[in-house]
Amino acid sequence: MSTPSSLEALIEALRCLPGVGPKSARRMAYHLLQRDRSGAQHLADALRQALRVLRHCQRCNTFSEAEICDRCLSPRRDPSLLCVVETAIDLNMMEQTQAYSGLYYVLMGRVSPLDGIGPRELHLDRLLARASDGVVREVILATNFTNEGEVTAHTLEEMLKGRGFRVSRIARGVPVGGELEYIDSGTLAQAMRERKSF
Amino acid sequence: MSTPSSLEALIEALRCLPGVGPKSARRMAYHLLQRDRSGAQHLADALRQALRVLRHCQRCNTFSEAEICDRCLSPRRDPSLLCVVETAIDLNMMEQTQAYSGLYYVLMGRVSPLDGIGPRELHLDRLLARASDGVVREVILATNFTNEGEVTAHTLEEMLKGRGFRVSRIARGVPVGGELEYIDSGTLAQAMRERKSF
Repeated sequence: MSTPSSLEALIEALRCLPGVGPKSARRMAYHLLQRDRSGAQHLADALRQALRVLRHCQRCNTFSEAEICDRCLSPRRDPSLLCVVETAIDLNMMEQTQAYSGLYYVLMGRVSPLDGIGPRELHLDRLLARASDGVVREVILATNFTNEGEVTAHTLEEMLKGRGFRVSRIARGVPVGGELEYIDSGTLAQAMRERKSF
Repeated sequence: MSTPSSLEALIEALRCLPGVGPKSARRMAYHLLQRDRSGAQHLADALRQALRVLRHCQRCNTFSEAEICDRCLSPRRDPSLLCVVETAIDLNMMEQTQAYSGLYYVLMGRVSPLDGIGPRELHLDRLLARASDGVVREVILATNFTNEGEVTAHTLEEMLKGRGFRVSRIARGVPVGGELEYIDSGTLAQAMRERKSF
């Protein structure tokens, strides 16, 4: 009488997608089965392939198919600048501004005491090791301007300045409470250009 | 320098989902890779499994793992009533009302002359064969009240009445909980014309 179990399982599985509740998951499942079976097959394949081949770049920690990503190996990037972002999507937003030609380090998270995520859980020692390559001269903190992003920036500032790094923060052109992912690239470019030393 | 190709492929593949544009596809991909790899694996498996086992019920045309779905085989449904809906999701909505205990036929589409979808493309002959089982006494048209849904209902009405079926259409009017102030005048005019005596 009810929905077939494989269909229920698909609806449930679609809810792993951010922002997808029970109703849109159901609509997505029916849409795929009724109108886009090849798209569904393609999605299943793309998911498996991505899970199989993508890992973290050993230098910048972003998603990469190689041990060291293209960007970290590129001779066209300035290796004396290291920009720290929370997520790979933030890196992507920053790249779209074309206002920055240095390298990155992706935290894949943020300091969040309430969730029990501190410097240790974020593996900040890896960032420290990365920054200590003898080439990096300035670390630019581009974490979000949310509470957690600010705490992360503050934590990093303390840690890095204590070790003699020049540390800067992208300018507060980004509205307070704003997240990089939703900022237009003009504003973000401005924030990069007007970054201030601590 | 750019996003790895397997990641780009995943982002592109996610766009087969309805209502998902380039930006949310990117967010979904990063979310899955960064925070929910097991959910992504589960989704890939659920997609493959659903594509593998789901087919159309030979009687009502909805998605089913068996040749004839549970609902069509159920002794608790009234086989003299056949409700025609456009999609499996509409069937699901109707079932949730618990106001109907007959059987269904899912068109898996609608008559849409502009898109070249006529009675032949919708395989209305199959509906006709289904309704002609000698048990169905009334066909209830529950297609949408959109232009295409109305054209579909009209086409079905002509086709079925010509063959002696009793045909009805679900009622049109002000939604339950609807306030006249916010109802479009077309609906309101229709509700007035189709008013019922107490």
